[in-house]
Amino acid sequence: MSSAACIFCKIVKGDIPSFKLFESEKVLAFLDIQPLSRGHALVIPKFHGVKLTDIPDEDLTEILPVAKRIAIASGAENFNILQNNGRIAHQFVDHVHFHMIPKPNETEGLGVQWPMQETDMEKLKALHAEIKSKM
Amino acid sequence: MSSAACIFCKIVKGDIPSFKLFESEKVLAFLDIQPLSRGHALVIPKFHGVKLTDIPDEDLTEILPVAKRIAIASGAENFNILQNNGRIAHQFVDHVHFHMIPKPNETEGLGVQWPMQETDMEKLKALHAEIKSKM
Repeated sequence: MSSAACIFCKIVKGDIPSFKLFESEKVLAFLDIQPLSRGHALVIPKFHGVKLTDIPDEDLTEILPVAKRIAIASGAENFNILQNNGRIAHQFVDHVHFHMIPKPNETEGLGVQWPMQETDMEKLKALHAEIKSKM
Repeated sequence: MSSAACIFCKIVKGDIPSFKLFESEKVLAFLDIQPLSRGHALVIPKFHGVKLTDIPDEDLTEILPVAKRIAIASGAENFNILQNNGRIAHQFVDHVHFHMIPKPNETEGLGVQWPMQETDMEKLKALHAEIKSKM
C-alpha cells in the first residue's frame, strides 16, 4: 500500500533519491536531510500509513532492530528514538517514521520538555480499568 | 536477564505493583504513575538493558505492536512514542522503556524542541558512506 502524493512513498519507490542506510522487504532507513544532529536517521515501514495505529503489526516488528543497528553504526552514545503522531505532536510528514536522533550535547539533537503531572492514584486506578477493558 | 537494583525489573517480577496493561513472555506494559498526560503508558522489554543497543532483536519485535494496541485503547488521536538513551537524552530509569504519550493539547503531553541544522549535502554524503560502512 502506497500513496501517490507521499514524499516517503516516493523515496521508497526510488523516485526521490535518499541517503539509504538499510532496506528490506518491509522497512527502509535513510539519513534525515534536515538533521537535529550528526547521524540523525529515519526508519520507516514501506507500508503507507499516517499514524502508528494505521500500520499492521508485521510491518512494525523490524523497525526497532533496524533503529538499533543504525544507532550502533552511528557511534552515538546518547540518543532518542521518537515517532510523532499528529501535527500537534510534531508530525510533519504523513507517513509513519521513527527518528533516531543522536544527543551529543545540550544544544544539538532533540530538545525534550517534560510537563509532569501530579500522581493521582485514584484517577490512575479508574483509567487503568478503562484502558484495560479496551485492550 | 534482570538486575536486582532495577525498579523496572522489580515491576516485572511483581515485587513492586503496577497498573499493568499488557504482559507476554518478553514484554510488559503499564501506566506511568508520573504522567505527562492522561493515558501515558510505558512498554518495556523484560530483558534488562540500559539502552536500546543492549537489547536483543527478539526482545524488541513485539514492543511497537503493543504500543500501538495501547494507543488505540487509550483513544488518543495524537501521541508521541519516545525512547530515551542516556541522561543527557532525558533517560532517568536505566532499563529500556518506550513512552506512549498522548498529546491532547499544547500544554499537556510531550514538549518537543526541534533545533534543525542546515542541510549540507557534502557532509551528508560523507556521513552516509561512513555509517553504511559500519552497518
